[in-house]
Amino acid sequence: MTRPTAANFCFGLGLVASSRGEIATLTCCPPSRSFLMSSVWFKKHFSRSGSTANPGKAEALGRGVEQLPAPSLYRRPKFLRGVCSGERLPGRRPIYCPARDRPLQWRTGYAEVINAEKSEFNEDQATCCQISIRRRETGIEEQDWLILCSNQYLAGYYWALFDGHGGPDAAIIASNYLHYCIKQKLEEVVEGITEARPPMHLSGCCICPSDPQFVEEKQIQQEDVVIGALENAFQECDEVIGQEMEASNQSGGCTALAALYLQGKLYVANAGDSRAILVRKQSVVPLSSEFTPETERQRIQQLAFACPKLLADEFTQFEFPRRLKSDDIGQKVLYRDYSMAGWGYKTVEKADLKYPLIHGHGKQTRLLGTLAVSRGLGDHQLKVIDTDVEVKPFLSCIPQVKVFDFASHNIKEDDVLVLATDGLWDVLSNEQVAQIIRSFLDENRTDPYRFSELARSLVHTARGKQHGHQWILDGNSSASYDDISVFVIPLYNRDEDC
Amino acid sequence: MTRPTAANFCFGLGLVASSRGEIATLTCCPPSRSFLMSSVWFKKHFSRSGSTANPGKAEALGRGVEQLPAPSLYRRPKFLRGVCSGERLPGRRPIYCPARDRPLQWRTGYAEVINAEKSEFNEDQATCCQISIRRRETGIEEQDWLILCSNQYLAGYYWALFDGHGGPDAAIIASNYLHYCIKQKLEEVVEGITEARPPMHLSGCCICPSDPQFVEEKQIQQEDVVIGALENAFQECDEVIGQEMEASNQSGGCTALAALYLQGKLYVANAGDSRAILVRKQSVVPLSSEFTPETERQRIQQLAFACPKLLADEFTQFEFPRRLKSDDIGQKVLYRDYSMAGWGYKTVEKADLKYPLIHGHGKQTRLLGTLAVSRGLGDHQLKVIDTDVEVKPFLSCIPQVKVFDFASHNIKEDDVLVLATDGLWDVLSNEQVAQIIRSFLDENRTDPYRFSELARSLVHTARGKQHGHQWILDGNSSASYDDISVFVIPLYNRDEDC
Repeated sequence: MTRPTAANFCFGLGLVASSRGEIATLTCCPPSRSFLMSSVWFKKHFSRSGSTANPGKAEALGRGVEQLPAPSLYRRPKFLRGVCSGERLPGRRPIYCPARDRPLQWRTGYAEVINAEKSEFNEDQATCCQISIRRRETGIEEQDWLILCSNQYLAGYYWALFDGHGGPDAAIIASNYLHYCIKQKLEEVVEGITEARPPMHLSGCCICPSDPQFVEEKQIQQEDVVIGALENAFQECDEVIGQEMEASNQSGGCTALAALYLQGKLYVANAGDSRAILVRKQSVVPLSSEFTPETERQRIQQLAFACPKLLADEFTQFEFPRRLKSDDIGQKVLYRDYSMAGWGYKTVEKADLKYPLIHGHGKQTRLLGTLAVSRGLGDHQLKVIDTDVEVKPFLSCIPQVKVFDFASHNIKEDDVLVLATDGLWDVLSNEQVAQIIRSFLDENRTDPYRFSELARSLVHTARGKQHGHQWILDGNSSASYDDISVFVIPLYNRDEDC
Repeated sequence: MTRPTAANFCFGLGLVASSRGEIATLTCCPPSRSFLMSSVWFKKHFSRSGSTANPGKAEALGRGVEQLPAPSLYRRPKFLRGVCSGERLPGRRPIYCPARDRPLQWRTGYAEVINAEKSEFNEDQATCCQISIRRRETGIEEQDWLILCSNQYLAGYYWALFDGHGGPDAAIIASNYLHYCIKQKLEEVVEGITEARPPMHLSGCCICPSDPQFVEEKQIQQEDVVIGALENAFQECDEVIGQEMEASNQSGGCTALAALYLQGKLYVANAGDSRAILVRKQSVVPLSSEFTPETERQRIQQLAFACPKLLADEFTQFEFPRRLKSDDIGQKVLYRDYSMAGWGYKTVEKADLKYPLIHGHGKQTRLLGTLAVSRGLGDHQLKVIDTDVEVKPFLSCIPQVKVFDFASHNIKEDDVLVLATDGLWDVLSNEQVAQIIRSFLDENRTDPYRFSELARSLVHTARGKQHGHQWILDGNSSASYDDISVFVIPLYNRDEDC
């Protein structure tokens, strides 16, 4: 399958221009007829003739719908422009970083490498940009809407990684749309995130005199409204992907890990098996958890228990250490049901020989024999091969959001946030990554490109070196054959860009 | 309502005799026609003519079913015999401890006080006993079954608290049966808890040569099988309570907090809002979490989302800071749905004015306007007043089990495990309880009854003193009006009893 590469896929999202280069090019791209996005989503959200769900948005942006081509033209992240064409080089796995004359916000380091011919494309995608959140007023003109860098805007900084499966399309759409959805959802509740205590009514009116007290009793804070907006944005983005993929007859899904710095706090939203950690001199702070069929076993089994039809008599909801066979019938074997954290023994019946809803162990664990992750975006059409069993009902598109408040921590010069896809974490532990980071930064105090080189070094370590047809680590153990993408984000001078 | 008090309600469970007194009286009570238990449960589990689900047990114990009277005769814990009659003393709240000449296992301290006339009875119940777990062999004779203190037995130590609601009956049944269910479930899997790595097949046969490897890959350990047995025991006990209460036309439910010491590990199983903490010299280790409509909001809302029929159009699944009224319609107000950890704003529709599935805040939070806990035993018949909405589907009887491995901790002389019902924790924090314990034990080094006196002191502090019709703490704030029950379990010489 050949696809155009490095297509112009940008979309003017009211992003605030960075003084440091890359983002400015995104910012200068207002909505116009040249956008590459499918008509389905555009019609729903922006066209005058489409859904009336968002008339305000339709007023502001509803143009140039009719001749839009299909959305997912394969390319690498925009900030690798000029460095990486997206074409696979036969037998080679070069590591790409952004060009030195186009630094990313906060001097963020980034590096990536394609998989060892596991799939045709690098299915990881990445985004790094600023997001400006403004008060939305009704009846505002489009030209006012596009005024940037104003004091009326809250400046947010955003980094995200997406790891696609079943094709690169979902990850591409997510890398283009998720930050837009986040911006939109934050703007919808902006009055709730600019006051220390969000108002009961978004309008600020007080229907019941005790409203402020009710909100206080529930301990609802600014950050809870940001978390709610991130959750809703993932959900919105998932719907967009579903519509896009259906309209263009594409398939696949992706994980999503997004970090947002806003009002002195870092929000890390994760749906999938990528990971974020904060590496400090003396400690490593995990800022995400992985969501896989193994970690979400009980949620998934519980759904199958409540709605057994979803398994269509093809699967058993029970977990066993291995798939059972007819010799096991009548024996008492180890099992777990949805309500159990521990293990029991169950007398095996014929129905237990069905394929298990969740099967395998560790990285090999699969949901319905199909997927290795239990949260993410896309996969709306995915069915278990040769059956009518849909996978989507068991997936969740809702991220878990963790908050790191910089006000409560004395961030030091070499403290960095690391976001990486599972290609890195499959072969390096948090502690190993932290060791590499500490020693690299210690030895490279003055290099202005140190965070970029550090990202390259991490990817290089995890990819290993080629030995015949194998990729091996320094200790001769197996290196990562997967796509690997890494952001290294220095946190010390974080407000310099604002 | 008058009920007989201090009835003989014991049941011979193969309990191992303690050298220290109290438990021996329980142990010497073999199954006979004098037992007070309802015929429903007995028939199901033991009678020859009843269910064939457990023919082995029926063989061993199936006798004397026909003339058993109703089960729940109100009484205080058996180990308070001679100290407390169970009768309420008008206007008074005396604190009761076991008699000094009948020490509990491990020199456990216990104290309790009745509520400030909130209900007719003290709805808390408590159990403290040993549990012997033996290999079950088919065809064994009853007299062999009753041989106690043998090397073929694993000795377990058990403490449990039950906090009843809607009447004392469920708590009474649970205090009599839960340890039996635990013993039974552990015996059913005893081969799985006597080997470091539980076998795939309980019989020990190896149908697939890689079975040990499969079990190892899943990291299934001895303690996972104990956890599974505890989970299944709570479920079994809940079924028993359902049958008992239906047969005797009783209602109500209870929380259950059980601690089991077995093979060098402490298992704390909790379903409800009682709490267990380990108080050490320098630290407090929480050994349970509370399960209330507030802490389990997402599980409960998710069920309502999956099965909307359960709400019968009487309730809304959304959470709002307060109950909405018609003036709120059309406004955007703070809300949370099942998938959200954060808060969003929702435009209020008429349907949102229904009573919320979960409503209130803190201790006042109620499930379906009815219950203050979301896990526990019983409540099978409970309906929301004036509706057909059942509460039970939203309750879980499965405990969360936490494990404390003594091999990994250097337990010191004054380290104690505290189990208490919410009556204590409503007015004292973990830290306040720890402070009282440390200073009490420090000042009472030689008193042989120090743990009993300590339990009394904790209950006394939380109950406060009477001031007119009020009960107040030392600082004049409100004391606990609830039933209060406290175990203080010293851990240092824990194996002396074995």
